[in-house]
Amino acid sequence: MAYTAPVNDMMLALKTAGDLDGLIARGIYGSLDVDTIRAVIEEAGKFGAEVLAPLNASGDKAGSKLVDGKVVTPPGWTEAYKAFADGGWVSLPGSERWGGQGLPEVVSMTACEIWNAANLGFGLCPMLSQGAVDALESHGTEELKATYIPKLVSGEWTGTMNLTEPHAGSDLGALRTRAERQPDGTYRIFGTKIFITYGDHEMTPNIVHLVLARLPDAPAGTRGISLFLVPKYLVNADGSVGARNDVICASLEHKLGIHASPTCVMKYGEKDGATGWLVGEENRGLNVMFIMMNAARLGVGMQGVALADRAMQHALAYAKERRQGRSANTRGTDMAPIIEHADIRRTLLTMQSMTQAARMICVATAAALDVADRGTSEAERTQAAARAALLTPIAKAFSTDVGVEVASMGVQIHGGMGFIEETGAAQFYRDARILPIYEGTNGIQSIDLVTRKLPLEGGKVAAAYIAELEKTVADVKASNQPAFGRMAERLGEAVAALKQTSHWMGGALAKTPELAMAGATPYLRLFGLTAGGAYLARGALAAAREGHSAQAIAQARFFAENLLPATGGLATTVTSGGDIVNETTPEMFGA
Amino acid sequence: MAYTAPVNDMMLALKTAGDLDGLIARGIYGSLDVDTIRAVIEEAGKFGAEVLAPLNASGDKAGSKLVDGKVVTPPGWTEAYKAFADGGWVSLPGSERWGGQGLPEVVSMTACEIWNAANLGFGLCPMLSQGAVDALESHGTEELKATYIPKLVSGEWTGTMNLTEPHAGSDLGALRTRAERQPDGTYRIFGTKIFITYGDHEMTPNIVHLVLARLPDAPAGTRGISLFLVPKYLVNADGSVGARNDVICASLEHKLGIHASPTCVMKYGEKDGATGWLVGEENRGLNVMFIMMNAARLGVGMQGVALADRAMQHALAYAKERRQGRSANTRGTDMAPIIEHADIRRTLLTMQSMTQAARMICVATAAALDVADRGTSEAERTQAAARAALLTPIAKAFSTDVGVEVASMGVQIHGGMGFIEETGAAQFYRDARILPIYEGTNGIQSIDLVTRKLPLEGGKVAAAYIAELEKTVADVKASNQPAFGRMAERLGEAVAALKQTSHWMGGALAKTPELAMAGATPYLRLFGLTAGGAYLARGALAAAREGHSAQAIAQARFFAENLLPATGGLATTVTSGGDIVNETTPEMFGA
Repeated sequence: MAYTAPVNDMMLALKTAGDLDGLIARGIYGSLDVDTIRAVIEEAGKFGAEVLAPLNASGDKAGSKLVDGKVVTPPGWTEAYKAFADGGWVSLPGSERWGGQGLPEVVSMTACEIWNAANLGFGLCPMLSQGAVDALESHGTEELKATYIPKLVSGEWTGTMNLTEPHAGSDLGALRTRAERQPDGTYRIFGTKIFITYGDHEMTPNIVHLVLARLPDAPAGTRGISLFLVPKYLVNADGSVGARNDVICASLEHKLGIHASPTCVMKYGEKDGATGWLVGEENRGLNVMFIMMNAARLGVGMQGVALADRAMQHALAYAKERRQGRSANTRGTDMAPIIEHADIRRTLLTMQSMTQAARMICVATAAALDVADRGTSEAERTQAAARAALLTPIAKAFSTDVGVEVASMGVQIHGGMGFIEETGAAQFYRDARILPIYEGTNGIQSIDLVTRKLPLEGGKVAAAYIAELEKTVADVKASNQPAFGRMAERLGEAVAALKQTSHWMGGALAKTPELAMAGATPYLRLFGLTAGGAYLARGALAAAREGHSAQAIAQARFFAENLLPATGGLATTVTSGGDIVNETTPEMFGA
Repeated sequence: MAYTAPVNDMMLALKTAGDLDGLIARGIYGSLDVDTIRAVIEEAGKFGAEVLAPLNASGDKAGSKLVDGKVVTPPGWTEAYKAFADGGWVSLPGSERWGGQGLPEVVSMTACEIWNAANLGFGLCPMLSQGAVDALESHGTEELKATYIPKLVSGEWTGTMNLTEPHAGSDLGALRTRAERQPDGTYRIFGTKIFITYGDHEMTPNIVHLVLARLPDAPAGTRGISLFLVPKYLVNADGSVGARNDVICASLEHKLGIHASPTCVMKYGEKDGATGWLVGEENRGLNVMFIMMNAARLGVGMQGVALADRAMQHALAYAKERRQGRSANTRGTDMAPIIEHADIRRTLLTMQSMTQAARMICVATAAALDVADRGTSEAERTQAAARAALLTPIAKAFSTDVGVEVASMGVQIHGGMGFIEETGAAQFYRDARILPIYEGTNGIQSIDLVTRKLPLEGGKVAAAYIAELEKTVADVKASNQPAFGRMAERLGEAVAALKQTSHWMGGALAKTPELAMAGATPYLRLFGLTAGGAYLARGALAAAREGHSAQAIAQARFFAENLLPATGGLATTVTSGGDIVNETTPEMFGA
């Protein structure tokens, strides 16, 4: 089950959805050039293919285990993690101030796709460390930063996010873990957290937990949540690892997928309290956590792309090799490779074009984050930040839905063999299923899109984005490429549907917000399909200009002619299907 | 994880999609009346809920194991099977001539839903026995019938279907298992079969294998395949079980789901050949096998309904109990049951209405089979058989896609808990995934629909069916029910799209068959959605007439307003998306 990083597809996404040449020309990426970026991605691809991918199936089979209170990761994990950190892959996105390489989001997110495509159970670990770094960088005291960030950036230690409690999943306002102030300025933390990814392991000498908890005098709800840094081992003044803190992994979950990744129940303060340090202000922890979560949401979107790409590669290889039935190219009783059957080709084209569409949406989001971070003017940074905010829920939800759907198609392409675990397709189907759930369910993403992102700047952020999509329609029309088929027509219809529906959403939000909420999920899908179709079209335009890559053109045309027609129906559903959703009472669902 | 058979939904499906009252009035079901049918379904529901459902999760966990050459089914399996047979549930569909109860397909298929919803891993076993009975009844010699059918009908023995070989999955023409004629009129069978469900077990004293094999002088391809009956133990003249036959289970597959159901690699003739008896004529085995497969295809469609319903029940219970966030009905810091959130309601309505739509399509198919079998005139029987032939690929493919999609939504409703195996939602997601694959992949079903079923009687069978759907649109319009919302409009658009696309398909089949093939899968989806929407609408009309079941009306309206809008896009995809599917060469997919 080899994995090859799709470097050409990635570079096309960077160049078209990420406007890489434009951003380089404008100096956003400093001295970085396209060749260097490609070289980094190729090296990452090698590491993913050679070190991480071979451990994917064995890691799934072995799983992480809790043995004598310690989490034992699968065979090869510790060595792979060491090679990963030593290779500088943890430090790739880290700020140069803390020893990182300071590479842009578009590069680190592309690398993120590679780690997770190669091995999702492994890729989760560095993703969470990066979230901890982001939180500390933005809100940590200088002392906390100096003590923890360099070790996290280098990969010497790993980080975790501790949000969820049994009764408080999506609803963080309900959490009960408590923090008590100590005379020395530290806090004692008491409580149980669940679903803590890599909450414990022995791959590194320390683990840095970021934990949401409530002070005794905190207001109720989300305005009473504070964020604490709680190391597994206390850190001595010289930076060395000291005494064990009062935090343990009490058990591991038995999950549908990502078996290699330990999902821990963490107990804080079973003895006299886990020592923690406040990050940011008291009762303002949610703001800090949102910084971690926003970055993580794009990362999870990339995981969706990653799983989709891996499942697609796996299915494509099988479809070229497996022979069943006859085609126009077979003679006598020979059997044809199943890729010669139209229905299999349709499935593969769906898998491939949806994967690339999702990749392009994620890359566009990453590029917006880069400009938000590195833009030359305050106005440019603000505008880009708003663009990133708009696209993040789409990047997360659309891409992870694509991950699940494409992984399911991957099983189907394999026929009966797809249902046999040894084939490998089933693991992608199991692993992918977590993606629409964690870091905010996709339902929550769609509500975020509708209720927080569409209204940004009075709707101007979305309107400006849709205007760009209209420009793409005009460009496709003007290109007059026969190879594009009905791409302009279909994309034009989709963008019109998105525009009209967005307008409707704006009105509904003001007058009948419950209708806007009822239509949020199909609206996000409509947005994702249309944006994806437009990025693919830009990729096709670039390919046509440069006279190569029939693949990019075929993908864009297939997506436009075969998947974009769904947008009209989605618009109808959003704008006229919500009443019955709201009129249906719980009793009407039956017992 | 309780299961309750949805008897009201089932009866509504029987009455509207199955025209139960009409068929009873016309004497098709002899002396059976509605109350008796309901009583049988209620009893089946009790057995499913009380005996089979409690073993579903434990059976998944324990799995079937191969121990010392014998298949050991999970704890409780043998007792449950005995209770199942003793309760008369195996014999329910069996012909009275052989000791069966002779109940119609609509009843046995509804019972089939119950067994598989309660426990898919268990339900597979009797389904396959029934297929063996069908094959023997239609083509067995009187001696074979007398020896084997009564034991299969009573459930004293079980049956299997042996088609697949490692290199011959969907392409049966390529199979290599060979049969040698013996002087006594029997045959010796040599070969390996894979994916044999319940190929071995110790629940019954004998197992009856139906095995496809090739005679030494057989023509190549599918015209050279013969069907043989190969018992696990030879049967003595007095009907008692005799010597062991030369057939063994060599290994079990390690699967994504249905762990309780042993999926066997069967070896025939490892010593001097397994003794077999010819069923039907030499080289005509495929015709007999198609009898088994057609019945099995509807059964698998029902498994899709079953999994969808089970996943829906499980998610609905969770959504009513789990509290997160606030709604219009909550006060202070109370959390609302998540069913009060619009997005959750949309998902539950999607799950429920798709399940009922698929159920109605399957019931309509079963009712057509009943008329084909019991109709009063040859013309009526022929017409009904053609209707059943048309609907079977839709019943199989649409319902099993629904099974997978609804099971996936069921995981999603549970949030993080859905990914934890103990919750149970994940099992449905794993188990459901086999359904679009076995008994002919859904891609093959769509090609069957387009290339064999649409052309039946020069397209008249499909045209007559679509005319009935148009009648439903007119009825909904005429009913003038405010509670129906835009049901008439949306259903009318869907039926028009189906009609136009079917017409296009007829033309494409004649002129550009490769375009017809390229559009087969979205065409089947379009057909399934439209048919499902029409059946739901008939259910709503009945509910409105009788002044009850707001649920049936809400389901039909939700489906029409929120899911039927997809049909317009599917029509566009089918009629104008195929060129790029056919123009894309294997090389254009990349490495």
